[in-house]
Amino acid sequence: MVKKRKSSVAKKKSEIVGSLKSFGTKVYDQLYSGYFPSINMPSRSTENINYDPHLRQFILGDKSVRRSARNIRHVKPFTQLVWAARFSHELASQRKTSTLRDVYYSAQAYEMTFKDQQESNNIITDLETVLGFSREDFNIFPEERSAVFGDLTIEYTVPGYEGRKLNLTSHPDGVMIGPALTSSEFVSTTADKVIAIEKGGLFTRFIEENVHKKFNAVLVLTAGQAPRATRHFIRRLHKEMDLPVHIFTDGDPWGMHIAMVIISGSANAAHLRELNTPDAKWSGVWASDIINYKLPTDPLDEVDIKRLYELQRDPRYQENPLWQKEIKKFLRIKRKAEQEAFSRYGLTYIVDEYLPAKLEETK
Amino acid sequence: MVKKRKSSVAKKKSEIVGSLKSFGTKVYDQLYSGYFPSINMPSRSTENINYDPHLRQFILGDKSVRRSARNIRHVKPFTQLVWAARFSHELASQRKTSTLRDVYYSAQAYEMTFKDQQESNNIITDLETVLGFSREDFNIFPEERSAVFGDLTIEYTVPGYEGRKLNLTSHPDGVMIGPALTSSEFVSTTADKVIAIEKGGLFTRFIEENVHKKFNAVLVLTAGQAPRATRHFIRRLHKEMDLPVHIFTDGDPWGMHIAMVIISGSANAAHLRELNTPDAKWSGVWASDIINYKLPTDPLDEVDIKRLYELQRDPRYQENPLWQKEIKKFLRIKRKAEQEAFSRYGLTYIVDEYLPAKLEETK
Repeated sequence: MVKKRKSSVAKKKSEIVGSLKSFGTKVYDQLYSGYFPSINMPSRSTENINYDPHLRQFILGDKSVRRSARNIRHVKPFTQLVWAARFSHELASQRKTSTLRDVYYSAQAYEMTFKDQQESNNIITDLETVLGFSREDFNIFPEERSAVFGDLTIEYTVPGYEGRKLNLTSHPDGVMIGPALTSSEFVSTTADKVIAIEKGGLFTRFIEENVHKKFNAVLVLTAGQAPRATRHFIRRLHKEMDLPVHIFTDGDPWGMHIAMVIISGSANAAHLRELNTPDAKWSGVWASDIINYKLPTDPLDEVDIKRLYELQRDPRYQENPLWQKEIKKFLRIKRKAEQEAFSRYGLTYIVDEYLPAKLEETK
Repeated sequence: MVKKRKSSVAKKKSEIVGSLKSFGTKVYDQLYSGYFPSINMPSRSTENINYDPHLRQFILGDKSVRRSARNIRHVKPFTQLVWAARFSHELASQRKTSTLRDVYYSAQAYEMTFKDQQESNNIITDLETVLGFSREDFNIFPEERSAVFGDLTIEYTVPGYEGRKLNLTSHPDGVMIGPALTSSEFVSTTADKVIAIEKGGLFTRFIEENVHKKFNAVLVLTAGQAPRATRHFIRRLHKEMDLPVHIFTDGDPWGMHIAMVIISGSANAAHLRELNTPDAKWSGVWASDIINYKLPTDPLDEVDIKRLYELQRDPRYQENPLWQKEIKKFLRIKRKAEQEAFSRYGLTYIVDEYLPAKLEETK
């Protein structure tokens, strides 16, 4: 079945530019009326970050902070914030992209000084908090890149490619998830699920074994922790194309958390709503799989064990009994296994046996 | 001008399979004639690795090692080597790819034991040394992936895509350099140079600013140290399409060495000849650029300085006076700068001013 969906990239773009403009207008209006300009935004301090079981992610509480140009200590961060909004507006209207690092250096072109990279990153996060959009919406992209492969036809909106279409099976090594893909419209797909995979080797194995055809899947390579642009891309596949999402990672606390961040996000992004896919499923490698499939393992080291205890207490891991069960099992067997461990049964065992079993189990 | 070139991927594939077969035949013949099978291969011990100024890379000297099934201590590594050849032959004939990690686990499917990953990696390097092909030729690929964008039309040879063509400007975020791209034939290009770039953000900037058109360039993202498959890909672009190669990295010893490994390779791969591009040029960021362009900098830390002294003594850095000059300058100014530092003059300065100047300077 071919699913067609017109998403709303263009509509969102104009909302983003609109929000930047109205932020600027507000500052102007205050100045014009003879007031010191000021803004309120939710506080991002630890005590104001709470897990919301309904949204299944961290959110910010009721506490807010006020920045006022009347306060001498606020003048600098307030000015930096206004500059960040101006720079983002410039990026968006000129349709150029940037990185956090670039923002830091670009400031110098405007004689706007930041003490260090951390200070400029914080101001960008302030801007996200004030406007409710993520920095990728302002064309500020992560340095990291991951990839995708599968039957999804996209239509570009970036300059020079407007209206051009690409089917994401065009290149069998996968295409990069960057600004052009992220800002494209999703046109149609025959896929009925998304499979996200932690590692490049396995991503290639899945393509070679035609997982995209056999299981009607769009394959996403997270390449370790998924970059934010990739998390947003997965969310869009779920929301706009109604595709359920399965995540396959290594069988250890780090793999578990790669899945969790795709599902429920991070405390750092408690002020954002568009990065997570709460309905996505962690489909393995579970501690139970290590036992049931008699996988070759390595012992958990001290750092792994410490991490498992941290995850056990984390509110995101209270959501679904699966997490607690598997954490306990990891702590009991004190072993971990990589995805490649299935190769002990032959290179295609993971695709022929494990994958269909797990897709069924976590449907 | 459109350059067309038929490369020889198919011919090379048959040479590789042929070399694996003749290795097996040799072992069989020895057994059949009543001899303990044995092999000789060049030694990879440190004292047998020498820098060759003519080839402009490390090579192995005259010392060789002998592995004989007659020697009880050799029986295990000899058997492992024969298994590795068999497994590689299986990969090549079934046209499946693998990773070093996968090889380690796959061995267990054949009841072939390796003590650890390091032991199986070493055996694969032995196989490379015996046969003179790199593990990528045996379909054993790195986990890391980098990307390419530009006017190069390729023709796939992988199953399901045989004969299909793709122009590498199809996706404006870039396409991944994986097994399919690496094993494709290069059909034609209008480009007259290759520009390799260390960082993802800048790779995107170059695409957005139409560097591929303005400078007739194929753009390669190395994403830090270039994976071996990417180094081989750059070499092929140089050899098969006659394209000069320019490398742009951060202005620090680590960026310098990213360029050097593309140019002259590493001591670890002294037994291989197909990974390096000795004519490629490191086009910046030089210490001189930091001074001339008055770039924002960070101080060199102790590790940077230690590294610069190591590079100073390295024979690869004796080749061209540029290296020694720039190392000395780094040590004198005690500062480093990232590629993004050019953004202090505006986002497009690097493309409008710096890039054309450096391409001219390192022609």
